[in-house]
Amino acid sequence: MSLLTVGSVAFDAIETPFGKTDKIIGGAGTFIALSSSFYCANQQIVSVVGGDFPSEMIGLLESKGVDTKGLQIKKDEKTFFWSGKYHNDMNTRDTLVTELNVLGTFDPVIPAEYQNTKYLMLGNLSPQVQKLVIERLEKRPKLIAMDTMNFWMDIAMDDLKQTLALVDVLIINDEEARQLSQEYSLVKASRVIRAMGPKYLIIKKGEHGALLFYNEKVFFAPALPLEEVFDPTGAGDTFAGGFIGYLAATDDISFENMKRAIIAGSALASYCVEKFGTERLTEISKADVEARIEQFVALTDFSAVEKII
Amino acid sequence: MSLLTVGSVAFDAIETPFGKTDKIIGGAGTFIALSSSFYCANQQIVSVVGGDFPSEMIGLLESKGVDTKGLQIKKDEKTFFWSGKYHNDMNTRDTLVTELNVLGTFDPVIPAEYQNTKYLMLGNLSPQVQKLVIERLEKRPKLIAMDTMNFWMDIAMDDLKQTLALVDVLIINDEEARQLSQEYSLVKASRVIRAMGPKYLIIKKGEHGALLFYNEKVFFAPALPLEEVFDPTGAGDTFAGGFIGYLAATDDISFENMKRAIIAGSALASYCVEKFGTERLTEISKADVEARIEQFVALTDFSAVEKII
Repeated sequence: MSLLTVGSVAFDAIETPFGKTDKIIGGAGTFIALSSSFYCANQQIVSVVGGDFPSEMIGLLESKGVDTKGLQIKKDEKTFFWSGKYHNDMNTRDTLVTELNVLGTFDPVIPAEYQNTKYLMLGNLSPQVQKLVIERLEKRPKLIAMDTMNFWMDIAMDDLKQTLALVDVLIINDEEARQLSQEYSLVKASRVIRAMGPKYLIIKKGEHGALLFYNEKVFFAPALPLEEVFDPTGAGDTFAGGFIGYLAATDDISFENMKRAIIAGSALASYCVEKFGTERLTEISKADVEARIEQFVALTDFSAVEKII
Repeated sequence: MSLLTVGSVAFDAIETPFGKTDKIIGGAGTFIALSSSFYCANQQIVSVVGGDFPSEMIGLLESKGVDTKGLQIKKDEKTFFWSGKYHNDMNTRDTLVTELNVLGTFDPVIPAEYQNTKYLMLGNLSPQVQKLVIERLEKRPKLIAMDTMNFWMDIAMDDLKQTLALVDVLIINDEEARQLSQEYSLVKASRVIRAMGPKYLIIKKGEHGALLFYNEKVFFAPALPLEEVFDPTGAGDTFAGGFIGYLAATDDISFENMKRAIIAGSALASYCVEKFGTERLTEISKADVEARIEQFVALTDFSAVEKII
């Protein structure tokens, strides 16, 4: 089934306690597309880069089954650039540089061939741009998932609420869920947020796993306990990509299948953090992903407690 | 199978964002015994209280199948008293008062009838007292589990290490695991700590669940996402009590059964936090515990991801 991702394709420069990089490939759209390609063979991307973006990277996306007709290349401009430094606990980071460049005037043009997409993943972008994408699709996709961040809650809450009203699945982290809902308890937060539009809410808790809320149901997916988190950049996007890619590939949006999709996303995210940027995602095989999914199964599997009480 | 708990029986005064209590019944030994009684019909406690401790509470423990012959009553002295105030996030607290009273000179005398116990749970006490209990048992129990806290790492690390070398299961929280091991990664921490003695390590992560480490295996148990945590006091002891009580009742210390025991403990801990102190534990039924265990099963259960990759 077709999947369309709209999200940034960018350069990142990252510093962690383990080292630092020069400009490397990053961006939510990149991580989502690379990750979803492990499950979904037929997908498209809408984004924008500058003339400085390496054509080999576009070739890599194409080789993974990503149609890049919707990736605008503005030859005389520069690609979006973000630079950040992680603190020792790896859970917090400082943004050192944000150069919007081509992203500042991004007009998400949807190629005619993308019009019948069944699954739409809106990576973290301004809520106005996210809404524009939905409006430009002649037929509403079967499922629309989106990511966002605190920044938009600070400066564009009204726009964000308008966009939230149009989507099916919101994927955010615990801190963002608390800010958006003004509730500390994630159970309460999930109710407030789902009243804003999304029927499904996924709250990512980093090393503590993720929660999926739908009606009165809740599913808890663990994160794999890792020896070391080398670089968390893109882990959330990788999770989202695996999630939507799995849903699109199975074309099943039942709650039961969403649980499996979360495990599918978690497995990929657990690889993403092992090296800088997209490096690990470009070197692992489908067999590696299968093996990690098996680890997730073993991690939480217990036969039901015997009725001894 | 017989279970012996050694731990404080005490008074607590608690303040949370939801309210405050006068002196109520608390203490690690109390929570452990009450919790384990849901699974284990035959158990004993070794502890000490003052003349001010209400006989009805001792009667309550007896009514739950807890033999209290080992509970020393020092008529002219006062019971251990702790008072604390939780911060708004409920994850941190300040100790306001600690009056050791009878606990300051606690000499853990083991009644002859308790000598053949197969399961021993050492609640949080000074490591010297914990070691003394082990030495006073003529026959080593089949399984010894213990709890401890940062305080003993700060002031009695050498004693603590001697005691750790004698036990099978250590149950601590993530912050304590990091302090004890001097490692931030819990996977690395688990290796360092298990080299100190305990073959099994359980790391409690509060609202984020718990991890069980054994050899190269790891099991992740979720915590139930709760609407509200009313009072976290005793939740860790309740967890430990349910864990050891389930093991003692099933008399099976395999890794698979330990997973089930962790779920059994988690279910009880999720009730404990719903009201102040031991209140909730004294009003729930075995059917309530069964129902909550079913919720835990539903919370993490997913059929394995289809091999679509």
